[in-house]
Amino acid sequence: RFKNSVIAETPEKKLEHVINDLIEDIAPHAVNVASPYFIGHMTSAIPFFMVHLKTIVAALNQNVVKLETSKVVSVIEKQVMAKIHRLIYRKSDRFYDEHVQNTHTALGCFAEDGTLANLTALWVARNNLFSPKEGFAGVEKDGIQAAYNAYGVERCVILVSRLGHYSLQKAAGVLGIGNRNIIAVKVDKENRIELDRLVNTIDAIKTNETKTRILAVIGIAGATETGSIDPLSSLGRICSENRIHFHVDAAWGGPTLMSHRYGHLLSGIEKADSVTIDGHKQFYMPMSAGMVFFKDPTALDSIVYHANYVNRLGSVDLGIKSISGSREANSLILDAALKIMGSQGYALLIEHGIETARAFADEIRSRPDFELVTAPVLNILTYRVFPFPMKGQFAQGNPLQRKEITAKLNKINRTVQRLQREAGKSFVSRTTLKIVDSPEEEIVVLRCVIMNPMTTITILREILDEQEKIYRNAFP
Amino acid sequence: RFKNSVIAETPEKKLEHVINDLIEDIAPHAVNVASPYFIGHMTSAIPFFMVHLKTIVAALNQNVVKLETSKVVSVIEKQVMAKIHRLIYRKSDRFYDEHVQNTHTALGCFAEDGTLANLTALWVARNNLFSPKEGFAGVEKDGIQAAYNAYGVERCVILVSRLGHYSLQKAAGVLGIGNRNIIAVKVDKENRIELDRLVNTIDAIKTNETKTRILAVIGIAGATETGSIDPLSSLGRICSENRIHFHVDAAWGGPTLMSHRYGHLLSGIEKADSVTIDGHKQFYMPMSAGMVFFKDPTALDSIVYHANYVNRLGSVDLGIKSISGSREANSLILDAALKIMGSQGYALLIEHGIETARAFADEIRSRPDFELVTAPVLNILTYRVFPFPMKGQFAQGNPLQRKEITAKLNKINRTVQRLQREAGKSFVSRTTLKIVDSPEEEIVVLRCVIMNPMTTITILREILDEQEKIYRNAFP
Repeated sequence: RFKNSVIAETPEKKLEHVINDLIEDIAPHAVNVASPYFIGHMTSAIPFFMVHLKTIVAALNQNVVKLETSKVVSVIEKQVMAKIHRLIYRKSDRFYDEHVQNTHTALGCFAEDGTLANLTALWVARNNLFSPKEGFAGVEKDGIQAAYNAYGVERCVILVSRLGHYSLQKAAGVLGIGNRNIIAVKVDKENRIELDRLVNTIDAIKTNETKTRILAVIGIAGATETGSIDPLSSLGRICSENRIHFHVDAAWGGPTLMSHRYGHLLSGIEKADSVTIDGHKQFYMPMSAGMVFFKDPTALDSIVYHANYVNRLGSVDLGIKSISGSREANSLILDAALKIMGSQGYALLIEHGIETARAFADEIRSRPDFELVTAPVLNILTYRVFPFPMKGQFAQGNPLQRKEITAKLNKINRTVQRLQREAGKSFVSRTTLKIVDSPEEEIVVLRCVIMNPMTTITILREILDEQEKIYRNAFP
Repeated sequence: RFKNSVIAETPEKKLEHVINDLIEDIAPHAVNVASPYFIGHMTSAIPFFMVHLKTIVAALNQNVVKLETSKVVSVIEKQVMAKIHRLIYRKSDRFYDEHVQNTHTALGCFAEDGTLANLTALWVARNNLFSPKEGFAGVEKDGIQAAYNAYGVERCVILVSRLGHYSLQKAAGVLGIGNRNIIAVKVDKENRIELDRLVNTIDAIKTNETKTRILAVIGIAGATETGSIDPLSSLGRICSENRIHFHVDAAWGGPTLMSHRYGHLLSGIEKADSVTIDGHKQFYMPMSAGMVFFKDPTALDSIVYHANYVNRLGSVDLGIKSISGSREANSLILDAALKIMGSQGYALLIEHGIETARAFADEIRSRPDFELVTAPVLNILTYRVFPFPMKGQFAQGNPLQRKEITAKLNKINRTVQRLQREAGKSFVSRTTLKIVDSPEEEIVVLRCVIMNPMTTITILREILDEQEKIYRNAFP
């Protein structure tokens, strides 16, 4: 099946049959992301009205690249960008009055997803680091080679904890920095970047590697694997002291700012020069709606592009300052959702996720045959099947025996995850984490992302029960 | 209005009111892209079923980055990619049997829009040009500086006609090549790249600039401003002889391949190493759905990224080989549309556009007060108001007088376009073109894109009538 590579000349199917196929043949084989038992990834149920809003966006079919094909949508987008910017940066009324509809400045832009939002942030940082000067037209015009020559540089590095998303590597590769120059800093037992190590690395570079520049330090607000949050305030201070671009990848955690109860977990984010947030994650928008915000409303000036037939400089044309050209008006969806739910509506969803994850962590701790590996800070946790008898063996074992036990545990957890997925009722994901104390060793863990308001502790207990049963059947 | 930068804590509006606002307050101020009188841009009416398909995609909310969040959609996407690849490259049944569902190869990928599709093509070309070798891990890992050192290069250039889309500049900037290194080659009177100049430029670089590498030559199949098509077959031959990556930007013109009557206009496209086509243009999909295809099914290997928690090497996870990470399942829409309309359904739309544009060109030629500036090859043409008496003056004038007349004509056409747009009934866009004979001079032209099947020659006559009237009122 699905091996037909020929476009039929004449209509193959009527609309009704195509829709029928989608409902009867495709939908049942699609992933049931809306199930409360589907807690493996950052893709979940979305409020029903999101689908209707997406329909309206498709029906209007505006193209946000230019005012002539988007009109009112462009001003709504600027407004909603200001709302999220304010959530992050909490600048004054005067600041927002000045910038919300200012055609010369931009508080941020949409990018297809977090990957492209991170790329945009680092693109801006690169261009500002290697800005035009006497005899050099800037890196955007002259390229990396000329930039390095003009600034007496041989290498550029980006510092981020080793839990940084792989999109950062991709961005460094695309931008010509080289993805090897992403320096992965170790994390502490709470999976936060080790500040001492970071400072030492920065100092060492400044002292010994005179031809190396630090392009950016990246803080994570909601690591993909563990949900952990770096100490943003300290990172902000370190970056400011060393005049380094500070980017925060809050693709996942950003909307937590709407919660009075947990917003403080991200404090310090207002020090970031740029921030990524994904609309299709905890803003519960349909795929796919990334966003990036900048503290400085002129930061995006370093990536301006325009063309005669499309957007003119000084116009409100949003395509002037974005990595993409044509794109749909997803800002309408976010604008509407903020009005329908209010920040406290979102906060309810976010708080439910965090508190359910904490209750789940307690449940895992209470079960002898499991081990909680990373406790939830936000609504993500990792754990593994760790049969009680093996715990004793591990504690008393020598390094070689421990290694053997770890290998066995990895096999058990891989198997349990696969069989549960194949059974089709529940889904958790798996990943590998490095153990802080013995960094060479990787352990396979089960990973849960709790973002569905229908996912209760009862359901989570069922998922653990199922895993226990699978384990006992597979490893009798 | 639209200056509120505060997210309300509690719900501001019920869904019904938000939808009401969208219908009564936003929609009337959105751009009526579906009007047959809206012939100014590449955004037009879409078949009604496209909206329903988009609704289904949103409701399923699959995330194509990985199989675990997209499942059947991933195999459908591979199938539809093969269908379009076959339209372009016409390889053998055996080739498609081998690759359509091959998890190790990729015939192309979706990218948000043409800009990101072009960027992806040039990213691949860059990485293949500076691939790993003894002592060098490849440009993606080590960066541009190291790549240039390893290959003894100081500069990389990309050659394209001066009608190339501005996204190419953006791509060169992002990729670290420097957008100044896009070399704009002159065009002939039919707005096609001048092959002699191109060959001379290539030869000169090879002879005199030993430290310059040509990253790619780009052919245009449907220039944004004029709809013109470069001589793709000759470009393919030149690239092949010189071993240069040949990219074709067919964002606009690609679907013309479905027409038996006009598909031949793109002949030679099968020689391209990579091809961009936009789904939201002449595949009439909703915003936004760019695509890029590669002749070599392993070409995308040079940009592979993966991560433990998401996509694993050798899996069918589509996110391994794309510039974006998370993205929606637009491939479902294209797959369905191809079944519903067949290639001949699309051909009807495309042929209507081309033939209506040709009839429109005849109409413009027959009116004394207009001048056809670029005749349509596809369904795009440019013209201007050129009052009959001024034609005589221009023909007999000396260079200075001609310059003055051109300035006056530019003013007239800018005014006519603006007043017509403001009147709100019709919309044509405007751009500036350089005159082939006097390349320093720019003329303002009106630009029409005919892609709405409801746009008839009668409507086009009305648009000309309106422009004549506006001109007479504004310049009595």
